[in-house]
Amino acid sequence: MIKSKGADTMTVIKVAILGFGTVGEGVYRTIQSHAEELTAVLGKKVEVSAVLIKNTQKARNISEDVLVTTEFAEILRLPQLDIVVEAIVEREPPFSFLKKAIERGCHIITANKEMFAHHGEELLELAEENNVSVGYEATVAGGIPVIQTLRQLLNINRIKQVQGILNGTSNFILTEMREKKQSFEQALQLAQENGFAEADPTNDVEGFDAFYKTMILSRIAFGEEPNWHDVEREGITAITSEMIETAEKLGLKYKHIATISRTGDQIKATVRPALIGSEHPFYHVEGVQNAVSIQSDIVGEITLQGPGAGMFPTASAVIEDLVYVCKNNKPALRLRALTTN
Amino acid sequence: MIKSKGADTMTVIKVAILGFGTVGEGVYRTIQSHAEELTAVLGKKVEVSAVLIKNTQKARNISEDVLVTTEFAEILRLPQLDIVVEAIVEREPPFSFLKKAIERGCHIITANKEMFAHHGEELLELAEENNVSVGYEATVAGGIPVIQTLRQLLNINRIKQVQGILNGTSNFILTEMREKKQSFEQALQLAQENGFAEADPTNDVEGFDAFYKTMILSRIAFGEEPNWHDVEREGITAITSEMIETAEKLGLKYKHIATISRTGDQIKATVRPALIGSEHPFYHVEGVQNAVSIQSDIVGEITLQGPGAGMFPTASAVIEDLVYVCKNNKPALRLRALTTN
Repeated sequence: MIKSKGADTMTVIKVAILGFGTVGEGVYRTIQSHAEELTAVLGKKVEVSAVLIKNTQKARNISEDVLVTTEFAEILRLPQLDIVVEAIVEREPPFSFLKKAIERGCHIITANKEMFAHHGEELLELAEENNVSVGYEATVAGGIPVIQTLRQLLNINRIKQVQGILNGTSNFILTEMREKKQSFEQALQLAQENGFAEADPTNDVEGFDAFYKTMILSRIAFGEEPNWHDVEREGITAITSEMIETAEKLGLKYKHIATISRTGDQIKATVRPALIGSEHPFYHVEGVQNAVSIQSDIVGEITLQGPGAGMFPTASAVIEDLVYVCKNNKPALRLRALTTN
Repeated sequence: MIKSKGADTMTVIKVAILGFGTVGEGVYRTIQSHAEELTAVLGKKVEVSAVLIKNTQKARNISEDVLVTTEFAEILRLPQLDIVVEAIVEREPPFSFLKKAIERGCHIITANKEMFAHHGEELLELAEENNVSVGYEATVAGGIPVIQTLRQLLNINRIKQVQGILNGTSNFILTEMREKKQSFEQALQLAQENGFAEADPTNDVEGFDAFYKTMILSRIAFGEEPNWHDVEREGITAITSEMIETAEKLGLKYKHIATISRTGDQIKATVRPALIGSEHPFYHVEGVQNAVSIQSDIVGEITLQGPGAGMFPTASAVIEDLVYVCKNNKPALRLRALTTN
């Protein structure tokens, strides 16, 4: 299966993983467990060369021949580096790291929606200049192939509207509140105990996480974003057990829904709780599931549903990106001398 | 947008459409209404050069510069022909037409599941020899991009099981019987009046249509098919209003479900009615909707739902294939002298 044209180094694709949390570790384990499939698909072996970590005290099950470091500069100095996978959180330092990776000539893949919502355009432009690819399927709806599906539909369809349940934590809390008659606080605590919510859940329950994903989807579906300040963003913290109970008596459910649509030249988006009936495609999307519904002119309405987060679903999206950037029509992965910038 | 390298003919992609029923007409109309999008995506103008029809007496709204003929040989003799779209039914003559088209050096796209379930492998091999592509997304689940999604997941995931509601007519009948307390015969008649079922509904209600689609999915998901004779195929004709009513009292619904799974080296498939509860992803798939659920090792379970048939959803799948075969890594569309074989 392995093609042996060119230098020896061309038969191996060297990957660095930035961050070894849930997603980073999922990517590392998947590259190891699915080595055979990757070699078969790519005709090259995929190897993790380095992992960037923060806390040197934590025990991690990483092979000894992998460089494990707290210094990104050390990773950049590796003699070969083809792809940088970023699985950190927050905007910085990830944005700076990825800029340097692109300038070195690496393809980049990110799962970081906050960073990508803010700096995606800049990274895509820089990548274009440097003739490398950017994968970001993992930023929206975890393992559900939303971005690829939108791209494919867009070959011919004109998208009218995109709706999504994009935050698994909020959906889990709303589901628990309704099914088990729990308060918001009880349901949040359960989400935290199950690892679906952070100690500080603001990003999820106030709708910021869904907002970032919505902006990324808008850019793909419509080529642009609404003005961020014009987007109504509301989380689920104001929803009480009583509201949910009253809704249920009417056959309705609260869901936290992102909606993006184009009217004429204007893109409009909202990210907020909505009351929906059983005819809505999201009525039965429960727990940590995500769903995205795409309305377009030729095909009509298509709904995709699946796990929106978690170690392996997100890793799957990252690895699909990895295959995509490697097989993309760009020139073969190149080694570029490290310049001092 | 239009690249002008090479001969003039290279700036136009010439398409012949075989059959002008629902799907054929949908493809024709879509190529006209979305000409701008196609030129933008492909860098070439897409033109319908010819349409193969059966009945010369029927009025059709087809542009005067399109060759409308009952003779496939006339289409094959066109000075330029890049893509043949087949939207007929039954195995012959479509299979023979497509073989000749491939031998002439045309890419082919088909929406004909019965023909493709029987002869797909042979067509794919012949296409490989002739260095052309075959598109068949439209054979399964209309506008839902099931085949592309499976292919993409397969880059890295190992598929465990694929399930589908693949026949919109059967699903419509079961939905009507339950929601409106109708008999099978009443619901079938309504399906016929709405154009969802043929005068002879055997293919749909006895499960043959779903069976063909299941075999096509099996080949993509697992690289092979079960022995056709070992597949339990049962339609919905034995389901009575009483059975549906009893099920409903238990919170269950009858759905006509195709299931394909691999155990060890063995592929197993069934196509039959199943009683499912509200936890099943197909419980809420109603009317003429289709759905496909894919279970794989890394990403978990993903469900896709949408219109499984109809003029424009199916046309969308055909046109996505058209874009795909044109952009595929094969050599550019070639003109080959028509040989006498």
